Amino acid sequence: MMSNVKGKQFSPEERQAIYRVIRERRDVRSQFLSDPIPDDVLGRVLDAAHHAPSVGFMQPWDFILIESAAVRTNIHAHFQQMKERANIYEGERRNLYSASKLAGILDAPVNICITCDRGRAKGHGLGRQSDPMTDIYSTVCAVQNFWLAARAESLGVGWVSILDLDAVKELLNIPAEIHLVAYLCVGYVSEFQNRPGLEESGWETRDALTNLIHFDSWSNRNQPRAAAICTPADDSPKSL
Amino acid sequence: MMSNVKGKQFSPEERQAIYRVIRERRDVRSQFLSDPIPDDVLGRVLDAAHHAPSVGFMQPWDFILIESAAVRTNIHAHFQQMKERANIYEGERRNLYSASKLAGILDAPVNICITCDRGRAKGHGLGRQSDPMTDIYSTVCAVQNFWLAARAESLGVGWVSILDLDAVKELLNIPAEIHLVAYLCVGYVSEFQNRPGLEESGWETRDALTNLIHFDSWSNRNQPRAAAICTPADDSPKSL
Repeated sequence: MMSNVKGKQFSPEERQAIYRVIRERRDVRSQFLSDPIPDDVLGRVLDAAHHAPSVGFMQPWDFILIESAAVRTNIHAHFQQMKERANIYEGERRNLYSASKLAGILDAPVNICITCDRGRAKGHGLGRQSDPMTDIYSTVCAVQNFWLAARAESLGVGWVSILDLDAVKELLNIPAEIHLVAYLCVGYVSEFQNRPGLEESGWETRDALTNLIHFDSWSNRNQPRAAAICTPADDSPKSL
Repeated sequence: MMSNVKGKQFSPEERQAIYRVIRERRDVRSQFLSDPIPDDVLGRVLDAAHHAPSVGFMQPWDFILIESAAVRTNIHAHFQQMKERANIYEGERRNLYSASKLAGILDAPVNICITCDRGRAKGHGLGRQSDPMTDIYSTVCAVQNFWLAARAESLGVGWVSILDLDAVKELLNIPAEIHLVAYLCVGYVSEFQNRPGLEESGWETRDALTNLIHFDSWSNRNQPRAAAICTPADDSPKSL
Protein backbone atom coordinates (compact mmCIF):
# COMPACT_ATOMS: atom_id res chain seq x y z
CA MET A 1 0.00 0.00 0.00
CA MET A 2 2.81 2.38 0.83
CA SER A 3 5.21 1.56 -2.04
CA ASN A 4 4.83 4.99 -3.63
CA VAL A 5 6.05 6.83 -0.52
CA LYS A 6 8.95 4.44 0.01
CA GLY A 7 12.06 6.02 1.43
CA LYS A 8 9.85 8.42 3.37
CA GLN A 9 8.55 5.75 5.70
CA PHE A 10 9.78 5.36 9.25
CA SER A 11 11.44 2.07 10.20
CA PRO A 12 9.96 0.01 13.07
CA GLU A 13 12.90 1.17 15.23
CA GLU A 14 12.24 4.83 14.41
CA ARG A 15 8.53 4.42 15.12
CA GLN A 16 9.37 2.80 18.44
CA ALA A 17 11.58 5.77 19.38
CA ILE A 18 8.77 8.19 18.58
CA TYR A 19 6.23 6.27 20.65
CA ARG A 20 8.81 5.93 23.41
CA VAL A 21 9.36 9.69 23.71
CA ILE A 22 5.60 10.30 23.70
CA ARG A 23 5.17 7.79 26.58
CA GLU A 24 8.22 8.84 28.60
CA ARG A 25 7.72 12.61 28.43
CA ARG A 26 7.04 13.90 31.94
CA ASP A 27 5.97 17.14 33.59
CA VAL A 28 9.01 17.55 35.84
CA ARG A 29 8.63 19.47 39.10
CA SER A 30 11.32 18.66 41.60
CA GLN A 31 14.06 16.55 40.05
CA PHE A 32 16.03 19.34 38.36
CA LEU A 33 19.83 19.48 38.41
CA SER A 34 21.66 22.78 38.04
CA ASP A 35 23.96 21.50 35.26
CA PRO A 36 24.09 23.99 32.38
CA ILE A 37 22.44 23.15 29.07
CA PRO A 38 24.89 23.37 26.15
CA ASP A 39 23.95 25.95 23.52
CA ASP A 40 23.75 23.36 20.73
CA VAL A 41 21.20 21.33 22.75
CA LEU A 42 19.14 24.48 23.38
CA GLY A 43 19.36 25.22 19.67
CA ARG A 44 18.02 21.79 18.71
CA VAL A 45 15.04 21.84 21.07
CA LEU A 46 14.11 25.41 20.11
CA ASP A 47 14.39 24.46 16.44
CA ALA A 48 12.01 21.54 17.10
CA ALA A 49 9.53 24.05 18.54
CA HIS A 50 10.02 26.30 15.50
CA HIS A 51 9.06 23.37 13.25
CA ALA A 52 5.58 23.07 14.77
CA PRO A 53 2.59 23.45 12.47
CA SER A 54 1.16 26.96 12.37
CA VAL A 55 -2.02 28.34 10.87
CA GLY A 56 -1.24 29.98 7.51
CA PHE A 57 2.47 29.25 8.26
CA MET A 58 2.18 32.21 10.66
CA GLN A 59 4.91 31.06 13.13
CA PRO A 60 3.45 33.31 15.84
CA TRP A 61 5.82 32.17 18.61
CA ASP A 62 8.70 33.83 20.46
CA PHE A 63 11.02 32.21 23.01
CA ILE A 64 12.27 34.12 26.06
CA LEU A 65 15.14 32.28 27.72
CA ILE A 66 15.37 33.22 31.39
CA GLU A 67 18.79 32.36 32.77
CA SER A 68 19.28 35.28 35.18
CA ALA A 69 18.98 34.12 38.80
CA ALA A 70 17.57 37.52 39.82
CA VAL A 71 14.75 37.36 37.27
CA ARG A 72 13.94 33.76 38.23
CA THR A 73 13.88 34.69 41.93
CA ASN A 74 11.35 37.45 41.24
CA ILE A 75 9.16 35.14 39.22
CA HIS A 76 9.39 32.35 41.82
CA ALA A 77 8.30 34.72 44.60
CA HIS A 78 5.32 35.76 42.51
CA PHE A 79 4.30 32.19 41.65
CA GLN A 80 4.58 31.11 45.28
CA GLN A 81 2.17 33.88 46.28
CA MET A 82 -0.27 32.89 43.51
CA LYS A 83 -0.09 29.26 44.54
CA GLU A 84 -1.08 29.91 48.14
CA ARG A 85 -3.98 32.01 46.94
CA ALA A 86 -5.09 29.22 44.57
CA ASN A 87 -5.22 26.44 47.19
CA ILE A 88 -8.96 25.88 47.12
CA TYR A 89 -8.71 22.28 48.33
CA GLU A 90 -9.59 20.62 51.64
CA GLY A 91 -8.11 17.72 53.60
CA GLU A 92 -5.71 15.29 51.92
CA ARG A 93 -6.08 16.94 48.51
CA ARG A 94 -5.09 20.27 50.15
CA ASN A 95 -1.88 18.67 51.42
CA LEU A 96 -1.13 17.08 48.05
CA TYR A 97 -1.60 20.48 46.41
CA SER A 98 0.71 22.20 48.90
CA ALA A 99 3.38 19.59 48.29
CA SER A 100 3.43 20.23 44.53
CA LYS A 101 6.67 22.02 43.80
CA LEU A 102 7.48 25.33 42.18
CA ALA A 103 11.16 24.87 43.00
CA GLY A 104 11.96 24.11 39.36
CA ILE A 105 11.87 27.82 38.62
CA LEU A 106 15.00 28.23 40.75
CA ASP A 107 16.54 24.75 40.44
CA ALA A 108 16.43 24.42 36.66
CA PRO A 109 19.16 26.43 34.93
CA VAL A 110 16.81 27.79 32.26
CA ASN A 111 13.18 28.90 32.26
CA ILE A 112 11.59 29.43 28.87
CA CYS A 113 8.56 31.55 28.21
CA ILE A 114 6.75 30.76 24.94
CA THR A 115 4.49 33.50 23.63
CA CYS A 116 2.05 34.08 20.76
CA ASP A 117 2.15 37.30 18.74
CA ARG A 118 -1.49 37.46 17.70
CA GLY A 119 -0.88 40.37 15.33
CA ARG A 120 2.04 38.85 13.44
CA ALA A 121 1.79 39.63 9.73
CA LYS A 122 3.21 36.27 8.65
CA GLY A 123 0.52 33.97 7.26
CA HIS A 124 -1.68 36.83 6.04
CA GLY A 125 -4.50 35.79 8.36
CA LEU A 126 -5.10 32.46 6.59
CA GLY A 127 -7.30 30.12 8.64
CA ARG A 128 -7.95 32.61 11.40
CA GLN A 129 -11.17 34.22 10.20
CA SER A 130 -13.46 31.43 11.41
CA ASP A 131 -11.60 30.30 14.52
CA PRO A 132 -9.45 33.09 15.99
CA MET A 133 -7.86 30.65 18.46
CA THR A 134 -5.79 28.89 15.82
CA ASP A 135 -2.70 31.08 16.36
CA ILE A 136 -2.73 30.13 20.04
CA TYR A 137 -3.14 26.46 19.06
CA SER A 138 -0.09 26.74 16.80
CA THR A 139 1.94 28.04 19.72
CA VAL A 140 0.82 25.14 21.93
CA CYS A 141 1.96 22.71 19.19
CA ALA A 142 5.38 24.40 19.43
CA VAL A 143 5.36 23.80 23.20
CA GLN A 144 4.62 20.10 22.68
CA ASN A 145 7.36 19.73 20.03
CA PHE A 146 9.77 21.44 22.44
CA TRP A 147 8.74 19.10 25.27
CA LEU A 148 9.25 15.93 23.22
CA ALA A 149 12.61 17.07 21.80
CA ALA A 150 13.73 18.02 25.32
CA ARG A 151 12.87 14.53 26.60
CA ALA A 152 14.88 13.03 23.76
CA GLU A 153 17.84 15.16 24.95
CA SER A 154 17.29 13.95 28.57
CA LEU A 155 16.06 17.42 29.53
CA GLY A 156 13.15 17.63 31.93
CA VAL A 157 10.43 20.21 31.33
CA GLY A 158 7.88 21.48 33.85
CA TRP A 159 4.98 23.58 32.59
CA VAL A 160 4.05 25.99 35.40
CA SER A 161 0.38 26.73 35.01
CA ILE A 162 -0.20 28.52 38.30
CA LEU A 163 0.54 32.09 37.41
CA ASP A 164 -0.75 35.57 36.90
CA LEU A 165 -0.14 36.13 33.21
CA ASP A 166 -0.08 39.92 33.41
CA ALA A 167 2.38 40.06 36.31
CA VAL A 168 4.82 37.67 34.58
CA LYS A 169 4.52 39.67 31.36
CA GLU A 170 5.45 42.79 33.31
CA LEU A 171 8.45 41.08 34.96
CA LEU A 172 9.72 40.07 31.49
CA ASN A 173 8.79 43.35 29.71
CA ILE A 174 6.50 41.48 27.32
CA PRO A 175 4.36 43.95 25.32
CA ALA A 176 0.66 44.03 26.15
CA GLU A 177 -0.41 42.67 22.75
CA ILE A 178 1.72 39.50 23.08
CA HIS A 179 -0.04 36.49 24.64
CA LEU A 180 1.93 34.44 27.16
CA VAL A 181 1.12 30.78 26.46
CA ALA A 182 3.59 28.71 28.49
CA TYR A 183 6.12 29.17 31.28
CA LEU A 184 8.51 26.21 31.28
CA CYS A 185 11.31 25.13 33.63
CA VAL A 186 14.00 23.29 31.67
CA GLY A 187 17.02 21.32 32.87
CA TYR A 188 18.70 17.96 33.30
CA VAL A 189 17.11 15.83 35.99
CA SER A 190 18.03 13.22 38.59
CA GLU A 191 15.29 10.92 37.27
CA PHE A 192 12.36 10.65 34.94
CA GLN A 193 9.42 9.03 36.70
CA ASN A 194 7.78 6.00 35.10
CA ARG A 195 4.32 7.52 35.34
CA PRO A 196 2.93 11.08 35.49
CA GLY A 197 3.59 12.65 38.89
CA LEU A 198 -0.14 13.23 39.49
CA GLU A 199 -0.76 9.53 38.82
CA GLU A 200 2.09 8.46 41.16
CA SER A 201 0.84 10.72 43.93
CA GLY A 202 -2.75 9.50 43.68
CA TRP A 203 -4.16 12.83 42.52
CA GLU A 204 -5.81 11.26 39.45
CA THR A 205 -5.91 8.04 37.36
CA ARG A 206 -5.56 7.57 33.60
CA ASP A 207 -8.86 7.05 31.82
CA ALA A 208 -9.33 4.08 29.47
CA LEU A 209 -8.96 5.17 25.85
CA THR A 210 -12.07 3.16 24.94
CA ASN A 211 -14.13 5.60 27.04
CA LEU A 212 -13.03 8.50 24.84
CA ILE A 213 -13.82 7.24 21.33
CA HIS A 214 -17.02 8.02 19.41
CA PHE A 215 -18.09 7.07 15.87
CA ASP A 216 -19.65 9.49 13.37
CA SER A 217 -21.69 11.07 16.15
CA TRP A 218 -21.04 12.01 19.80
CA SER A 219 -23.82 9.66 20.90
CA ASN A 220 -22.46 6.60 19.08
CA ARG A 221 -19.94 4.94 21.41
CA ASN A 222 -19.85 1.51 19.63
CA GLN A 223 -17.91 -0.16 22.43
CA PRO A 224 -16.97 -3.35 20.49
CA ARG A 225 -15.37 -1.32 17.70
CA ALA A 226 -13.62 0.94 20.24
CA ALA A 227 -12.31 -2.16 21.99
CA ALA A 228 -11.02 -3.53 18.66
CA ILE A 229 -9.16 -0.28 17.99
CA CYS A 230 -7.69 -0.15 21.46
CA THR A 231 -6.48 -3.75 21.59
CA PRO A 232 -2.74 -3.45 21.23
CA ALA A 233 -1.31 -5.50 18.38
CA ASP A 234 1.67 -7.76 19.10
CA ASP A 235 4.11 -5.32 17.55
CA SER A 236 2.75 -2.23 19.26
CA PRO A 237 4.78 -0.49 21.95
CA LYS A 238 3.93 -1.42 25.53
CA SER A 239 2.04 1.18 27.49
CA LEU A 240 3.83 2.37 30.60
CA MET B 1 26.50 14.47 33.78
CA MET B 2 23.71 12.09 32.87
CA SER B 3 25.09 8.93 34.48
CA ASN B 4 22.36 8.81 37.11
CA VAL B 5 19.57 8.64 34.54
CA LYS B 6 21.36 6.05 32.43
CA GLY B 7 19.09 3.54 30.77
CA LYS B 8 16.47 6.25 30.39
CA GLN B 9 18.44 8.19 27.82
CA PHE B 10 17.63 8.12 24.14
CA SER B 11 20.28 6.81 21.75
CA PRO B 12 21.55 9.08 18.94
CA GLU B 13 19.50 6.98 16.50
CA GLU B 14 16.34 7.40 18.59
CA ARG B 15 16.92 11.16 18.88
CA GLN B 16 17.41 11.36 15.14
CA ALA B 17 14.06 9.58 14.58
CA ILE B 18 12.31 12.04 16.88
CA TYR B 19 13.80 15.08 15.16
CA ARG B 20 13.03 13.49 11.80
CA VAL B 21 9.31 13.10 12.54
CA ILE B 22 9.15 16.68 13.84
CA ARG B 23 10.72 17.97 10.59
CA GLU B 24 8.80 15.70 8.21
CA ARG B 25 5.32 16.17 9.68
CA ARG B 26 3.14 17.91 7.10
CA ASP B 27 -0.29 19.48 6.96
CA VAL B 28 -1.70 17.31 4.16
CA ARG B 29 -4.43 18.71 1.92
CA SER B 30 -4.67 16.94 -1.40
CA GLN B 31 -2.52 13.82 -1.48
CA PHE B 32 -4.87 11.46 0.38
CA LEU B 33 -5.43 7.86 -0.76
CA SER B 34 -8.66 6.05 0.08
CA ASP B 35 -6.87 2.97 1.50
CA PRO B 36 -8.40 1.98 4.83
CA ILE B 37 -6.46 2.51 8.06
CA PRO B 38 -6.08 -0.74 10.03
CA ASP B 39 -7.63 -0.64 13.50
CA ASP B 40 -4.34 -1.35 15.26
CA VAL B 41 -2.75 1.67 13.57
CA LEU B 42 -5.70 3.85 14.58
CA GLY B 43 -5.33 2.52 18.10
CA ARG B 44 -1.66 3.43 18.30
CA VAL B 45 -2.07 7.01 17.05
CA LEU B 46 -5.06 7.63 19.31
CA ASP B 47 -3.13 6.20 22.25
CA ALA B 48 -0.29 8.64 21.44
CA ALA B 49 -2.82 11.48 21.66
CA HIS B 50 -4.13 10.10 24.96
CA HIS B 51 -0.56 10.27 26.35
CA ALA B 52 -0.36 14.04 25.91
CA PRO B 53 0.27 16.16 28.99
CA SER B 54 -2.87 17.52 30.61
CA VAL B 55 -3.40 20.09 33.31
CA GLY B 56 -4.04 18.32 36.62
CA PHE B 57 -3.98 15.01 34.62
CA MET B 58 -7.45 16.08 33.48
CA GLN B 59 -7.40 14.24 30.10
CA PRO B 60 -10.16 16.51 28.78
CA TRP B 61 -10.15 15.12 25.22
CA ASP B 62 -12.58 12.97 23.22
CA PHE B 63 -12.05 11.55 19.73
CA ILE B 64 -14.89 11.34 17.21
CA LEU B 65 -13.95 9.12 14.29
CA ILE B 66 -15.95 10.07 11.20
CA GLU B 67 -15.90 7.25 8.69
CA SER B 68 -19.45 7.56 7.27
CA ALA B 69 -19.37 8.96 3.72
CA ALA B 70 -22.72 10.64 4.29
CA VAL B 71 -21.53 12.53 7.36
CA ARG B 72 -18.31 13.56 5.62
CA THR B 73 -20.27 14.79 2.59
CA ASN B 74 -22.43 17.00 4.80
CA ILE B 75 -19.39 18.42 6.54
CA HIS B 76 -17.54 18.99 3.27
CA ALA B 77 -20.49 20.90 1.81
CA HIS B 78 -20.57 23.08 4.90
CA PHE B 79 -16.81 23.76 4.87
CA GLN B 80 -16.86 24.64 1.16
CA GLN B 81 -19.54 27.24 1.82
CA MET B 82 -17.54 28.70 4.75
CA LYS B 83 -14.41 28.81 2.63
CA GLU B 84 -15.97 30.87 -0.15
CA ARG B 85 -17.30 33.28 2.44
CA ALA B 86 -13.85 33.58 4.04
CA ASN B 87 -11.96 34.47 0.83
CA ILE B 88 -11.04 38.01 1.79
CA TYR B 89 -7.99 38.09 -0.46
CA GLU B 90 -7.29 39.95 -3.70
CA GLY B 91 -5.25 39.13 -6.82
CA GLU B 92 -2.69 36.30 -6.75
CA ARG B 93 -3.22 35.60 -3.05
CA ARG B 94 -6.96 35.18 -3.78
CA ASN B 95 -6.16 32.52 -6.37
CA LEU B 96 -3.75 30.75 -4.02
CA TYR B 97 -6.45 30.73 -1.37
CA SER B 98 -9.06 29.31 -3.75
CA ALA B 99 -6.67 26.55 -4.78
CA SER B 100 -6.18 25.36 -1.19
CA LYS B 101 -8.00 22.07 -0.90
CA LEU B 102 -10.80 20.84 1.32
CA ALA B 103 -10.97 17.60 -0.64
CA GLY B 104 -9.27 15.69 2.17
CA ILE B 105 -12.57 15.58 4.03
CA LEU B 106 -13.92 13.29 1.31
CA ASP B 107 -10.69 11.68 0.04
CA ALA B 108 -9.24 10.60 3.39
CA PRO B 109 -10.95 7.48 4.78
CA VAL B 110 -11.21 8.90 8.29
CA ASN B 111 -11.85 12.36 9.71
CA ILE B 112 -11.19 12.81 13.42
CA CYS B 113 -12.68 15.50 15.55
CA ILE B 114 -10.78 16.19 18.79
CA THR B 115 -12.74 17.97 21.50
CA CYS B 116 -12.18 19.39 24.99
CA ASP B 117 -14.66 18.70 27.79
CA ARG B 118 -14.12 21.84 29.86
CA GLY B 119 -16.25 20.53 32.71
CA ARG B 120 -14.58 17.15 33.10
CA ALA B 121 -14.20 16.24 36.76
CA LYS B 122 -10.84 14.51 36.26
CA GLY B 123 -7.96 16.60 37.60
CA HIS B 124 -10.07 18.34 40.25
CA GLY B 125 -9.47 21.75 38.63
CA LEU B 126 -5.73 21.72 39.37
CA GLY B 127 -3.88 24.43 37.44
CA ARG B 128 -6.97 25.93 35.90
CA GLN B 129 -7.78 28.63 38.45
CA SER B 130 -5.23 31.15 37.16
CA ASP B 131 -5.30 30.37 33.45
CA PRO B 132 -8.61 28.81 32.38
CA MET B 133 -7.19 28.05 28.91
CA THR B 134 -4.97 25.24 30.13
CA ASP B 135 -7.53 22.50 29.41
CA ILE B 136 -7.72 23.67 25.80
CA TYR B 137 -3.90 23.70 25.66
CA SER B 138 -3.83 20.09 26.89
CA THR B 139 -6.14 19.10 24.06
CA VAL B 140 -3.92 20.83 21.49
CA CYS B 141 -0.94 18.86 22.88
CA ALA B 142 -2.98 15.71 22.18
CA VAL B 143 -3.51 16.89 18.60
CA GLN B 144 0.24 17.40 18.12
CA ASN B 145 1.06 13.97 19.60
CA PHE B 146 -1.52 12.43 17.25
CA TRP B 147 -0.03 14.28 14.26
CA LEU B 148 3.52 13.12 14.98
CA ALA B 149 2.50 9.50 15.61
CA ALA B 150 0.45 9.55 12.42
CA ARG B 151 3.48 10.73 10.41
CA ALA B 152 5.52 7.91 11.93
CA GLU B 153 2.83 5.50 10.64
CA SER B 154 2.97 7.14 7.16
CA LEU B 155 -0.47 8.64 7.74
CA GLY B 156 -1.07 12.15 6.49
CA VAL B 157 -3.05 14.57 8.65
CA GLY B 158 -4.72 17.80 7.51
CA TRP B 159 -6.03 20.20 10.16
CA VAL B 160 -9.04 21.98 8.65
CA SER B 161 -9.25 25.35 10.33
CA ILE B 162 -11.84 26.96 8.08
CA LEU B 163 -15.04 26.00 9.78
CA ASP B 164 -18.06 27.10 11.70
CA LEU B 165 -17.57 25.39 15.04
CA ASP B 166 -21.25 25.42 16.01
CA ALA B 167 -22.48 23.99 12.72
CA VAL B 168 -19.98 21.11 12.83
CA LYS B 169 -20.91 20.40 16.43
CA GLU B 170 -24.53 20.16 15.37
CA LEU B 171 -23.71 17.81 12.48
CA LEU B 172 -21.86 15.53 14.93
CA ASN B 173 -24.35 15.88 17.82
CA ILE B 174 -21.63 17.29 20.07
CA PRO B 175 -23.15 18.73 23.27
CA ALA B 176 -23.07 22.50 23.65
CA GLU B 177 -20.67 22.44 26.61
CA ILE B 178 -17.98 20.48 24.70
CA HIS B 179 -15.40 22.61 22.87
CA LEU B 180 -14.40 21.51 19.36
CA VAL B 181 -10.63 22.03 19.09
CA ALA B 182 -9.53 20.29 15.88
CA TYR B 183 -11.06 18.76 12.77
CA LEU B 184 -8.50 16.45 11.12
CA CYS B 185 -8.48 14.52 7.84
CA VAL B 186 -6.44 11.33 8.25
CA GLY B 187 -5.25 8.81 5.67
CA TYR B 188 -2.38 7.33 3.73
CA VAL B 189 -0.96 9.65 1.09
CA SER B 190 0.65 9.55 -2.34
CA GLU B 191 3.51 11.73 -1.08
CA PHE B 192 4.77 13.78 1.82
CA GLN B 193 6.11 17.11 0.58
CA ASN B 194 9.65 18.13 1.56
CA ARG B 195 8.49 21.50 2.85
CA PRO B 196 5.22 22.91 4.22
CA GLY B 197 2.65 23.36 1.45
CA LEU B 198 2.33 27.09 2.18
CA GLU B 199 6.10 27.46 1.81
CA GLU B 200 6.12 25.46 -1.46
CA SER B 201 3.28 27.53 -2.89
CA GLY B 202 4.92 30.85 -2.01
CA TRP B 203 2.25 31.85 0.52
CA GLU B 204 4.81 32.44 3.29
CA THR B 205 8.49 31.86 4.18
CA ARG B 206 10.00 30.33 7.33
CA ASP B 207 11.39 32.92 9.75
CA ALA B 208 14.94 32.59 11.07
CA LEU B 209 14.94 31.11 14.59
CA THR B 210 17.46 33.77 15.69
CA ASN B 211 14.75 36.41 15.17
CA LEU B 212 12.53 34.70 17.73
CA ILE B 213 14.84 34.34 20.74
CA HIS B 214 15.01 36.80 23.66
CA PHE B 215 17.07 36.69 26.86
CA ASP B 216 15.67 37.44 30.35
CA SER B 217 13.55 40.24 28.92
CA TRP B 218 11.53 40.76 25.74
CA SER B 219 13.73 43.74 24.83
CA ASN B 220 17.04 41.84 25.11
CA ARG B 221 17.65 40.16 21.75
CA ASN B 222 21.42 39.48 22.24
CA GLN B 223 21.98 38.50 18.63
CA PRO B 224 25.48 36.98 19.09
CA ARG B 225 24.18 34.59 21.77
CA ALA B 226 21.11 33.74 19.68
CA ALA B 227 23.40 33.01 16.74
CA ALA B 228 25.55 30.74 18.94
CA ILE B 229 22.46 28.80 20.03
CA CYS B 230 21.13 28.48 16.49
CA THR B 231 24.40 27.35 14.90
CA PRO B 232 23.81 23.68 14.21
CA ALA B 233 26.45 21.42 15.72
CA ASP B 234 28.07 18.81 13.46
CA ASP B 235 25.94 16.01 14.88
CA SER B 236 22.64 17.87 14.75
CA PRO B 237 19.98 16.83 12.26
CA LYS B 238 19.89 18.77 8.99
CA SER B 239 17.01 21.16 8.56
CA LEU B 240 14.79 20.35 5.58
